[in-house]
Amino acid sequence: MSGNVLEGIRVLDFSRVFAGPAATQVLGDMGAQVLKVEPPGGDEARYYGVTKARLERFGGVSPSFLALNRNKRSLEIDLRTEEGKEIARALARDVDVVVHNYRPGVMERLGLGYDALQALNPRLIYAEFSAFGTTGPLAKAGANDLALQAHSGLISITGEEDRSPVRCGSAIVDLHGSLAIVSAILGALFHRVSTGVGQRVESSLLLSSAHLMSYFYTEYWMDGAMHKPMGTANHLSVPNQAFPGSDGEVVIIASTNEMWQRLVAALGPEGLDGPEFADVFDRRSNRAALVKAVSAITSTKTCAELLAILEAAKVVATKVNTIGEAADHPQLAAVGGRVELPVGEHRIGSVATPFSFSNAPSAEVSSPPVLGADTDEVLAEFGFSRERIEAFREAGAFGRSQAKN
Amino acid sequence: MSGNVLEGIRVLDFSRVFAGPAATQVLGDMGAQVLKVEPPGGDEARYYGVTKARLERFGGVSPSFLALNRNKRSLEIDLRTEEGKEIARALARDVDVVVHNYRPGVMERLGLGYDALQALNPRLIYAEFSAFGTTGPLAKAGANDLALQAHSGLISITGEEDRSPVRCGSAIVDLHGSLAIVSAILGALFHRVSTGVGQRVESSLLLSSAHLMSYFYTEYWMDGAMHKPMGTANHLSVPNQAFPGSDGEVVIIASTNEMWQRLVAALGPEGLDGPEFADVFDRRSNRAALVKAVSAITSTKTCAELLAILEAAKVVATKVNTIGEAADHPQLAAVGGRVELPVGEHRIGSVATPFSFSNAPSAEVSSPPVLGADTDEVLAEFGFSRERIEAFREAGAFGRSQAKN
Repeated sequence: MSGNVLEGIRVLDFSRVFAGPAATQVLGDMGAQVLKVEPPGGDEARYYGVTKARLERFGGVSPSFLALNRNKRSLEIDLRTEEGKEIARALARDVDVVVHNYRPGVMERLGLGYDALQALNPRLIYAEFSAFGTTGPLAKAGANDLALQAHSGLISITGEEDRSPVRCGSAIVDLHGSLAIVSAILGALFHRVSTGVGQRVESSLLLSSAHLMSYFYTEYWMDGAMHKPMGTANHLSVPNQAFPGSDGEVVIIASTNEMWQRLVAALGPEGLDGPEFADVFDRRSNRAALVKAVSAITSTKTCAELLAILEAAKVVATKVNTIGEAADHPQLAAVGGRVELPVGEHRIGSVATPFSFSNAPSAEVSSPPVLGADTDEVLAEFGFSRERIEAFREAGAFGRSQAKN
Repeated sequence: MSGNVLEGIRVLDFSRVFAGPAATQVLGDMGAQVLKVEPPGGDEARYYGVTKARLERFGGVSPSFLALNRNKRSLEIDLRTEEGKEIARALARDVDVVVHNYRPGVMERLGLGYDALQALNPRLIYAEFSAFGTTGPLAKAGANDLALQAHSGLISITGEEDRSPVRCGSAIVDLHGSLAIVSAILGALFHRVSTGVGQRVESSLLLSSAHLMSYFYTEYWMDGAMHKPMGTANHLSVPNQAFPGSDGEVVIIASTNEMWQRLVAALGPEGLDGPEFADVFDRRSNRAALVKAVSAITSTKTCAELLAILEAAKVVATKVNTIGEAADHPQLAAVGGRVELPVGEHRIGSVATPFSFSNAPSAEVSSPPVLGADTDEVLAEFGFSRERIEAFREAGAFGRSQAKN
């Protein structure tokens, strides 16, 4: 193997909460040095869902912070102070990439906008992630993952027929946005090889959500078609949804006639071999009857029995897993999808970056950083003397709690 | 502006349906030349959800195919023929990137596995996308987006409390996987600049789904915690969910005490200023009562009224849009999120790649290709004579329907 893909690349990360930190974790896994600049008190995701039991056991770091902040060092910097701004500019002069998700205009007011930093460092790649983008009627509006699930129409197609729709249970807009940021930064790094200069790259929760909805928007733009929630089913094929077993649910996918015939042979044929289910179009028209007929059979068998029968018949089927069943499934570990995170004396599982390189190792896994733990070390690496660093501390550049020490 | 980010990069794309095609569309938007190699009859996504009306109006191309296949040329090649394999190997020798999503082992049996192609072209980047990865107990299992929504536990946390859970309405595992493939390919292109050689990169629906679930898995791995569906709400903060207006639903997010006080002033204070809702922990404990109290107020106002009141109070709120409202919202067009796709005499909207470059234009948008329309042209570009191409046709390398001509 050669070295890491991003060996020698330095990333200055002002982003907080989910999408930005998830993006820079991927860059860190690829070998970049990620410097996480946190405001006094730290990235608010450090405290999401922290309970007393977790505080005692794991030192107060939240699950989502642990999940998205390995392979980084932390600097605690108060950007409202002149000294904090001076430090940020000095670091930006010598890194390859800046990432932030402040609302449009905030970094400019801090003297850390693209134009200001590009003048200091023409090779800089400056990645901005916002809620709705930096122009247009909603540019100034705040939002989170849920807001974009609602705005994008994703909620409108998620849920049960004839009931109020629901959200997708995970922060998928944030996490999809993280790979949009990663793609943009990697594209700009590649482009820099030939152009010699950096550039500003942009993504947003809005664009991330629209990408997740792209085929629904195109269909609407073609002829006005819209869809409704269908439980676990979808409008494209039947059966392609969950069915009850005696001890849980199993999704069964048999969208072609050939697959359906295999399913009929495996689970029937009684009840399933009628002409009302003979063809793709019949099955789509008679979905309710088909679901009833298949369910009558599946509900008499355990999930394990159903999976064995359907696997033997080469029908695609998967158990509707709980989070625990999914996280601990041996397949995830077998493909390197789980890495071990050292947290104090614990080793906690963490989900790997979702792609790998045959000729480049992933970076060794280091714990999510303690807030501000690396401030002095990093500033020394960037050439600040111990005296300068102490003067910054006295001036409150690292937050008032540090200044008081 | 400089040239496109991927100017001069050639991609040979054997992938079908959603994740792979979505990935190569992004590469095409970045300026790569994408050669889509389709089996006789074409990528099956060409026919998903095609109705008679669409067939007449748009020439039979499906919404999802239109959404994910701009900026490509199409070759129809029968890889089961010796001539088809010969063509594929000849193209692979001269491109930068190969992408495929055949089941593990299929490309090897066709003589198109990584080892074979790498021997012909050491600079080749070979991207494999599979269902569950290429090793482990499930390596040979088939799956689709729904199967991984089920396997990953995403379905287990999506839906209403105390009812059967549902799927997320869009193929988010596929689409997230597409950006994993893009990231891996861009990383390998950047790495190739320093190493001089290509490599094999890998992703899967499994890794994509696990990444979307990463913070839930970490929490489970910490102390066994699992979550349940909560409608539009989530376990981290209250209120952070949908509320009824008189003419639709609005999500309202007021997770801190400061935001909650602004909400109380804007919508109340009657009914909302009690001690049972005073603090973050109170609101989380009394969520049902809070939702009832807020709903009693919101249901008397239209969505437009609610959004105006909450915007003025600086409380984050968004309408639960239909697909049409989302697709046609002026914000999407304002940030370049909609591009126009020429399809015959129509121009149909299409969702843009979810990131942009200040110093590199997106490629001009070209229509999704007609099946096999570019076979002859591309083979000529790769040095095949007209006679060779005709001999391939006679031998059935482009499918039997062409051989008969």
